[in-house]
Amino acid sequence: MIMRLDRLQAEIPPPTDADPNGASIVQELLGGKFGEMSTFMNYTYQSFNFRNRNGARPFYDLVASIAAEEFGHIELVATAINTMLTGAGDGKAGKRGALKGLKDARNAQEWIAGGCSALVQDSQGKPWNGDYVNATGDLIGDLTWNFFLETGARNNKLKVYEAVDHPAARALTGYLLVRGGVHQVAYARALENLTGSKMEKLFPSPRIPTDKIPECKPHIKRGEHLKLYRWSPDDFKELAAVFNGPHPETGEELEVAEELHPEGSVPNDLPAQEAVFAPGPDVGEIEEIARKLRSAAGLPETGKAKSKKAPKAKAKARK
Amino acid sequence: MIMRLDRLQAEIPPPTDADPNGASIVQELLGGKFGEMSTFMNYTYQSFNFRNRNGARPFYDLVASIAAEEFGHIELVATAINTMLTGAGDGKAGKRGALKGLKDARNAQEWIAGGCSALVQDSQGKPWNGDYVNATGDLIGDLTWNFFLETGARNNKLKVYEAVDHPAARALTGYLLVRGGVHQVAYARALENLTGSKMEKLFPSPRIPTDKIPECKPHIKRGEHLKLYRWSPDDFKELAAVFNGPHPETGEELEVAEELHPEGSVPNDLPAQEAVFAPGPDVGEIEEIARKLRSAAGLPETGKAKSKKAPKAKAKARK
Amino acid sequence: MIMRLDRLQAEIPPPTDADPNGASIVQELLGGKFGEMSTFMNYTYQSFNFRNRNGARPFYDLVASIAAEEFGHIELVATAINTMLTGAGDGKAGKRGALKGLKDARNAQEWIAGGCSALVQDSQGKPWNGDYVNATGDLIGDLTWNFFLETGARNNKLKVYEAVDHPAARALTGYLLVRGGVHQVAYARALENLTGSKMEKLFPSPRIPTDKIPECKPHIKRGEHLKLYRWSPDDFKELAAVFNGPHPETGEELEVAEELHPEGSVPNDLPAQEAVFAPGPDVGEIEEIARKLRSAAGLPETGKAKSKKAPKAKAKARK
Amino acid sequence: MIMRLDRLQAEIPPPTDADPNGASIVQELLGGKFGEMSTFMNYTYQSFNFRNRNGARPFYDLVASIAAEEFGHIELVATAINTMLTGAGDGKAGKRGALKGLKDARNAQEWIAGGCSALVQDSQGKPWNGDYVNATGDLIGDLTWNFFLETGARNNKLKVYEAVDHPAARALTGYLLVRGGVHQVAYARALENLTGSKMEKLFPSPRIPTDKIPECKPHIKRGEHLKLYRWSPDDFKELAAVFNGPHPETGEELEVAEELHPEGSVPNDLPAQEAVFAPGPDVGEIEEIARKLRSAAGLPETGKAKSKKAPKAKAKARK
Amino acid sequence: MIMRLDRLQAEIPPPTDADPNGASIVQELLGGKFGEMSTFMNYTYQSFNFRNRNGARPFYDLVASIAAEEFGHIELVATAINTMLTGAGDGKAGKRGALKGLKDARNAQEWIAGGCSALVQDSQGKPWNGDYVNATGDLIGDLTWNFFLETGARNNKLKVYEAVDHPAARALTGYLLVRGGVHQVAYARALENLTGSKMEKLFPSPRIPTDKIPECKPHIKRGEHLKLYRWSPDDFKELAAVFNGPHPETGEELEVAEELHPEGSVPNDLPAQEAVFAPGPDVGEIEEIARKLRSAAGLPETGKAKSKKAPKAKAKARK
Amino acid sequence: MIMRLDRLQAEIPPPTDADPNGASIVQELLGGKFGEMSTFMNYTYQSFNFRNRNGARPFYDLVASIAAEEFGHIELVATAINTMLTGAGDGKAGKRGALKGLKDARNAQEWIAGGCSALVQDSQGKPWNGDYVNATGDLIGDLTWNFFLETGARNNKLKVYEAVDHPAARALTGYLLVRGGVHQVAYARALENLTGSKMEKLFPSPRIPTDKIPECKPHIKRGEHLKLYRWSPDDFKELAAVFNGPHPETGEELEVAEELHPEGSVPNDLPAQEAVFAPGPDVGEIEEIARKLRSAAGLPETGKAKSKKAPKAKAKARK
Repeated sequence: MIMRLDRLQAEIPPPTDADPNGASIVQELLGGKFGEMSTFMNYTYQSFNFRNRNGARPFYDLVASIAAEEFGHIELVATAINTMLTGAGDGKAGKRGALKGLKDARNAQEWIAGGCSALVQDSQGKPWNGDYVNATGDLIGDLTWNFFLETGARNNKLKVYEAVDHPAARALTGYLLVRGGVHQVAYARALENLTGSKMEKLFPSPRIPTDKIPECKPHIKRGEHLKLYRWSPDDFKELAAVFNGPHPETGEELEVAEELHPEGSVPNDLPAQEAVFAPGPDVGEIEEIARKLRSAAGLPETGKAKSKKAPKAKAKARK
Repeated sequence: MIMRLDRLQAEIPPPTDADPNGASIVQELLGGKFGEMSTFMNYTYQSFNFRNRNGARPFYDLVASIAAEEFGHIELVATAINTMLTGAGDGKAGKRGALKGLKDARNAQEWIAGGCSALVQDSQGKPWNGDYVNATGDLIGDLTWNFFLETGARNNKLKVYEAVDHPAARALTGYLLVRGGVHQVAYARALENLTGSKMEKLFPSPRIPTDKIPECKPHIKRGEHLKLYRWSPDDFKELAAVFNGPHPETGEELEVAEELHPEGSVPNDLPAQEAVFAPGPDVGEIEEIARKLRSAAGLPETGKAKSKKAPKAKAKARK
Repeated sequence: MIMRLDRLQAEIPPPTDADPNGASIVQELLGGKFGEMSTFMNYTYQSFNFRNRNGARPFYDLVASIAAEEFGHIELVATAINTMLTGAGDGKAGKRGALKGLKDARNAQEWIAGGCSALVQDSQGKPWNGDYVNATGDLIGDLTWNFFLETGARNNKLKVYEAVDHPAARALTGYLLVRGGVHQVAYARALENLTGSKMEKLFPSPRIPTDKIPECKPHIKRGEHLKLYRWSPDDFKELAAVFNGPHPETGEELEVAEELHPEGSVPNDLPAQEAVFAPGPDVGEIEEIARKLRSAAGLPETGKAKSKKAPKAKAKARK
Repeated sequence: MIMRLDRLQAEIPPPTDADPNGASIVQELLGGKFGEMSTFMNYTYQSFNFRNRNGARPFYDLVASIAAEEFGHIELVATAINTMLTGAGDGKAGKRGALKGLKDARNAQEWIAGGCSALVQDSQGKPWNGDYVNATGDLIGDLTWNFFLETGARNNKLKVYEAVDHPAARALTGYLLVRGGVHQVAYARALENLTGSKMEKLFPSPRIPTDKIPECKPHIKRGEHLKLYRWSPDDFKELAAVFNGPHPETGEELEVAEELHPEGSVPNDLPAQEAVFAPGPDVGEIEEIARKLRSAAGLPETGKAKSKKAPKAKAKARK
Repeated sequence: MIMRLDRLQAEIPPPTDADPNGASIVQELLGGKFGEMSTFMNYTYQSFNFRNRNGARPFYDLVASIAAEEFGHIELVATAINTMLTGAGDGKAGKRGALKGLKDARNAQEWIAGGCSALVQDSQGKPWNGDYVNATGDLIGDLTWNFFLETGARNNKLKVYEAVDHPAARALTGYLLVRGGVHQVAYARALENLTGSKMEKLFPSPRIPTDKIPECKPHIKRGEHLKLYRWSPDDFKELAAVFNGPHPETGEELEVAEELHPEGSVPNDLPAQEAVFAPGPDVGEIEEIARKLRSAAGLPETGKAKSKKAPKAKAKARK
Repeated sequence: MIMRLDRLQAEIPPPTDADPNGASIVQELLGGKFGEMSTFMNYTYQSFNFRNRNGARPFYDLVASIAAEEFGHIELVATAINTMLTGAGDGKAGKRGALKGLKDARNAQEWIAGGCSALVQDSQGKPWNGDYVNATGDLIGDLTWNFFLETGARNNKLKVYEAVDHPAARALTGYLLVRGGVHQVAYARALENLTGSKMEKLFPSPRIPTDKIPECKPHIKRGEHLKLYRWSPDDFKELAAVFNGPHPETGEELEVAEELHPEGSVPNDLPAQEAVFAPGPDVGEIEEIARKLRSAAGLPETGKAKSKKAPKAKAKARK
């Protein structure tokens, strides 16, 4: 089971100009074959289906905890898409022409089905599906797939970076390129530990100059290219048995982070889009009802987010 | 983002006789239109796509935290399926006839693609897909859908209960029927709070006699039919503004649980199935490698699960 | 637009033994590529999309009216499936084992999603989809497709006849084989009238000995293999310009029926299946409510079907 | 079975400028999850699969007759699309550049597969499929779904109205918004009659100001927002037991129409599009053949539509 | 089994301006329902599944050898698409803006998933699927389908010709229109030989003036509209028993070619597209490695294509 | 383009007892994600889409020629399935009960749609689709995928071997396990040559004891585990630059075969199945027509296969 923190793993800038076509491209990173739904679901089901966990726990812990990070990735991609779609419509529900600018956009369902928000689809509007998951139970086979999946995912991220100039897309891809690289290394390390293969020789795969990409640099500077988080208060401690040694590209030492998860950031509260009923045709009414309910329940008056600081959770196991 | 706890929300009994056809039926509760992938993903994306969260936070908190519970539900269904498939094959990889008994089973991919484990598919082997998600941004619309989705989900769970006699399936459906009922009530309450409709008159919907189903009773006794968890150390506190009042069937008071999540149970470590390479054709080799890696990393020798007791996390916000 | 008559085009016998696997096979005739959903939707959309109707009206009228007959065919196939699934479950909702006999059946969604009734799927549980429709606007092309579609449809019907022995399936296929043959002839005649090709030489295609199949004989005896209905009180009169000449197999004269539609029969009222909530877990309650509503609305007391005799509508245009 | 009337339920204006991208958006109202194919097929299959009809006839009659109206809705949407695509190509088949203007259009299959006409697809070109149908046999469950389905459908219609300015699209959505509202009310009434829930409190859902939308007003003026038709010469009379009481938004009395169906209008005969072979590369040839066939069959010379006046069918049962 | 010749059946001009939207349209001819994947796979599986081949060998040989030609057609369409996408990106991998021009293009997967190359998809980005194959084993039925499939395929090719002006697209469609016509004739002849139907009266179907299309003329001049190749050194000789008689449009004699396959042409070596890693981010490195490997293996130094002249294989059987 | 040889790469035994469920399982090896359609189409499209072929020709030649071998693999799998379905029906078309034994079989479309023959589907009846193809243009990425694809394919083949006991299935899997192993090695070698990674350490992957599997042994004895064929009279000679060095499991030297392709065998002529119209309801009639056509064309009288001996094609380039 999971506990959820209402924070993003990284910062996505607030809305500026809407970019519906850009958002439709970013969907590939969410619902495409190599999108974050695929990484999240592949590792999640591999962890569910893992047999003889106790005997092979370092590998189980690795896969299970990376799965947890990937939830944060679908959250980030969705947030970037929603940011890019903010402002795409204009006016109240029922106003002729309120969505005129969207008629020619690449993905019509982002505003018809999604209310100017993310869908579980790829860049062509094809829904993500369970066929994209390989969870065969065969540890070496699954790790090989995971390594390839991350390779394909980074390939796609770079292409989206090259094509879409919106600040939200750039912030997103900059962060994901760095973290995806760590997952690739993790699976390569696992394979090497199991078989002796020299997967590190394949790096960087694909050849992505993250150290020269401005949006990657701050994350590299913070060491995000070197560490795995445990993403659990008490579990997954044995991943340290697999994730160690030098980084195949930089030679720096890989490490399991002391903190359980990145501090992250409070998400921007994206404004209502009344033309598409999000969250309704008259946002004031909902606010009023919420105020009354809160008051009736004895909750503090303001609905503003309060948890600006993330919990300073340290990894007990590493002390 | 999420933190993951390596525990199940409820107990699934250990493997007994394999029941491949039963497992293929239980898949509907995982990857079917009304399966747990659908509830998990619907609420997750609705929370990602929620606009003006601060203004409507009680509703946001409700949807976002129920989403977190649903992760535990896909975990439970997968565990039940894996339990039911344990022992379906027999012998070492490469032995002619080792999987003979599976040739006539309903779902061949559970053993070909899944290594005798769960797939992201329904009971006919059709992959779950993103089209099953409605996250339109329209709060009333989405809550209406959620209410219906839970209705359909419980309908399906009862049918599976009536058809599949394996202890793992019964334990699973007993628990999910109770928890699904709570979610239905939660969405009905949200709609009533927003509009004044009397959704409680629709209860029970569908008409399921949980209080007479032996596998539901222990959960009802523990009050699991009455409470929502927050599933977060610091967030989602405003759901209390929506989830309150009497239970529409029993009249008992609804409550937000003091503990953040159910204590749950340590999952059984399902044994290797070498005929399908899960986790490999020779489980001893992997164990040996794991032992060495653990030792090299200075981790304690045994790979046995240690977190028998769940963390006694209390809801700080409720004090 | 359409008017609906609450009658079946042919008689389907009342339920006897349940035959879930047989029902799953009959689904191919409903939702398969060559099933009745395909014939219904192909001709319907071809009629919607028909350009220059006035200039080419005999052809438009032919396609548009056959489309109307096909609605009755999806109704018949669904009825046969529902008949075959009657009695497949046993007992009240919530009773363990009530659906035990269905665990191994080929199509689990017929009882999980369908409540022991027809689905918009084929014999493998794959949903019918709009890709099965060819409505290109090109008259010769579409008629060629229609001819082939009917050929494929009859091929499938015969195979289902050969495999499934349930009386409902036999009654169904006996009738559809005869009527499908008429549609094949109609499209062949249309092509011959447009181009001079001798499509009649392809008959019978496929080679189906309908005159020797006991379930076809009564329909042939009534001349159902020779006539097209207009399926409209006032329209589609020009199909007579295309549908004429000798039947390619028997040499008898083709004719446009004087009556607008076959008399047909009142459908059997299939009994409730409470184990799958159809129409609910307690059928008496619904009956009681219906009685009260009827009474409040001043309607006659009994809910029994009264239109035992079909309206004796004659084709005005033919007089 | 059905009888077909060669008339549209409402008037769609004749072609003006082509609007291929607008047409691609309107496809969502035809083949999308919440499009008219979904409403038509959901209610149709629910009526086919309805058990114990006699006992629950008021509800059966309601669902069965609304299904009939929905046929007219797919007809209307297809007509609007075809109107919007008229003139999108230019020139004879085989002329280089004849379709140049379509190369960049959103949906290429509308002209490649459809000959500038409607497809059984949504706004992204994904085919409609049978998975969109819920016909579970469970009356309360299905009615809840129907209510939600109409809610989603109206949400989508309003968005299309806001985005697409073509007169055909506006006429279409204006009419459908009004009629969809009636269906929503009908299903809400059915649920209230069965359970006592106050679904009317959810209205309008979604919040659509139909009384202020110019294209809705004439239909409201004619009372189309208040009445259900029976769509059958002799059947479905008991729907009056369910569809009654005040309209939840206006308080006016709901009524079952005296006439069996709206008078509707004769569809415009859309002109040939020779560049896409619709109905062929040389429309004169087909006209000439039609003339000869008509003459040989002794039919009147002109192919012009004659049924300008709809049959004055009155509902016998209501007298 | 097959032998592969590294040549194209016809010449596709070298890259000029990139035309991503044009390329996305041409995909319909590759992965659409009536694209070359469909013709290739239909005839291939019909040949695999052909029973009693010896008894019906002329028909088997016809289908089996046309299948072989269709491989060359998917190769040609892919080549045209790749040519049209050459130059669509600009700059090195990792350069912001390198793919900016592609953000608004119709098919994003051509550059995200395909590296600016062909995908197994249609013009809407929907993957080709095995449902498009009819291989029923019924010879008359399958031949009727094949005739219709070629009809639909030519219809689509002409529309693409009318819409897309890129030289590669025009060269492609000019050639395929001519060869598709031959296949149509072949299947019509087969049906006539089996049944006596006068399928030739349907020609041309659709009505395509190939003799007036500039891009078709050179192929007609070379007699490519009249001949079938055997595509096999020693097999498929009996197709001559079916493919003979006069061409239905021109009256010229059909013939089995003396040469086993057209001479064809050496494909252009399309340049690297480094922005999308094709074949890598630094093409020089791969070249250097290739040089070393070649040298170590004792192969000649240059990697340039040497087989400028196709093997002069004559059909032994026809002598 | 290709030339086709009417021979199988390996021998599949003649029909014995029918095994419909076994055949439905073997479909996974044809149309599954890791089936031969996937290997064939992946390498084929990678070769079509290969940029800068001249500069990277050793790699191009490797991929392009393995693609050609894979055509023979889909042919083999289809042949095994057809063999296993021979005799599944019984009697003439139209005979009630002729297909009775198939009503309960796993895949109904093998006899309804396929006429007791192979479909382009997987073991659950889901069609193969183009999404299974990765042809990204990125050489290292694609080779990594190919390596994983072959790994998954061999995993599946072994499981089918363990489950299905029919002689045709065993002969099939025995051969494919050996040849798939060679392809795995080839892609591993290519990656090692490009990057220096030690992919050979992953072998065998998955751990399959081919040397102990009776059905593999004869192929290993003939050295089929060590050699690649060129599959082309004049092309693909540079694959020798990549495929060399010791076999990772046995240490034996890898080699490019002197012969262009394996001698293979003449396929068994599978008998007609009249109950499913394959090749028709009366096989004698077709034979008679074939005889007449052959005679009219001056072809030798017998339709028996004559090419018992494969052409002794040697690889000219290797001399």
